[in-house]
Amino acid sequence: MENSLPQHTNRQYAGELRELRIRLLKMGGMVERQIADAVNSLVSRNSEQAGEVIARDAAVNQMDVDIDAMCVRLLALRQPAAGDLRFITTALKINYDLERIGDLAVNICERALELNQEPIVKPYIDIPRIAEIAESMVKDSLDAFLRSDCELAEAVITRDDEVDSLNGQIFRELLSYMAEDPEAIGRGTRILFVSKNLERIADHAGNIAEMVVFMVKGKTIRHMDDSKLGERR
Amino acid sequence: MENSLPQHTNRQYAGELRELRIRLLKMGGMVERQIADAVNSLVSRNSEQAGEVIARDAAVNQMDVDIDAMCVRLLALRQPAAGDLRFITTALKINYDLERIGDLAVNICERALELNQEPIVKPYIDIPRIAEIAESMVKDSLDAFLRSDCELAEAVITRDDEVDSLNGQIFRELLSYMAEDPEAIGRGTRILFVSKNLERIADHAGNIAEMVVFMVKGKTIRHMDDSKLGERR
Repeated sequence: MENSLPQHTNRQYAGELRELRIRLLKMGGMVERQIADAVNSLVSRNSEQAGEVIARDAAVNQMDVDIDAMCVRLLALRQPAAGDLRFITTALKINYDLERIGDLAVNICERALELNQEPIVKPYIDIPRIAEIAESMVKDSLDAFLRSDCELAEAVITRDDEVDSLNGQIFRELLSYMAEDPEAIGRGTRILFVSKNLERIADHAGNIAEMVVFMVKGKTIRHMDDSKLGERR
Repeated sequence: MENSLPQHTNRQYAGELRELRIRLLKMGGMVERQIADAVNSLVSRNSEQAGEVIARDAAVNQMDVDIDAMCVRLLALRQPAAGDLRFITTALKINYDLERIGDLAVNICERALELNQEPIVKPYIDIPRIAEIAESMVKDSLDAFLRSDCELAEAVITRDDEVDSLNGQIFRELLSYMAEDPEAIGRGTRILFVSKNLERIADHAGNIAEMVVFMVKGKTIRHMDDSKLGERR
């Protein structure tokens, strides 16, 4: 906020930045709920809930458009200085990630609607576990952004490995399951796609977390692999 | 470029905007080549080529970091007016999409490395077709952006349906193939993932195209479905 605008304009500007944070937090909350409800619609075979998640995507999309417009307006009218500028351009990209996460929740619901009409392959045990981790990664990555908390962001990045390993486990289990019962191949692959979608949600959260570290430290840990991350500590 | 800076500064600014366009074009070219080579490494069972694509991802990532920094610098130093501002913030997000597309090409190579070690399930006929469409979508969406060409962008959005339908076809074929030969389930699902990755590449191109229409018309066609798109024409 080190610009040369008159003080009342500065107050207004600070209010707008606060409003941007609040909206991002709200967007994050909406998206977390979309993930949780999508997975629940599958696990509890609740197709009505799946339909509700799909319907709510319009509100997530509207929020995306609003936040995007707000960022552009702030850039246009407030000519933010270095720190705020990096905050706003990062917000622009994080918002984009959150909207994509919303789309992935819709994808999960589409698979749930198909799977709920068929007999259960096996109880969904690992799917809710991946979902829980992915959801917490989304929440923590956004919190890390809003609090400029590098440590929390780095913890999110580390958790991505857990998701990848759980996803690999589900993949192997479902493969052997489908090999034993070729009738279950259609259902098995749909569950694989759900698992993949959750992995992608975790990836988005990981991307957000990397941007936070980049924003705070001003260095590029984006695109570094974990071993290098380890060295840096 | 309707700002109030002295003329020599304006010339410099115009040069920087030109440089941003050139870099995005270069990034697009790199990423298109990554897709083409990734798919070729699978189809022609060339694992060495897969390794090369994976190695080249570092250069794509560096380009992403450079373009991102350039956008932020332009926003900070040039205080761009409305049209340029929207161009730069869109460039920021398109660059992000291109980098993700590069990651998806790497994913394809990882599956290719696995698949190349096993017997062929069946000749890859549809995969190169999807790849070709996805690649052309990436190229055209970026061209549409650089030329502010709404018509081209809308054509890209329409082509996404073609990819989805080809992907559905591959899905069904592989399912029945795996049902007949349960030994091929591992390979079949890996091919499914390749196909899904190409679909995601097409999705990214579709997102870029939607942003172009949004940037040019200033209206939100993002998040409209095709039927509504049709009504608008």
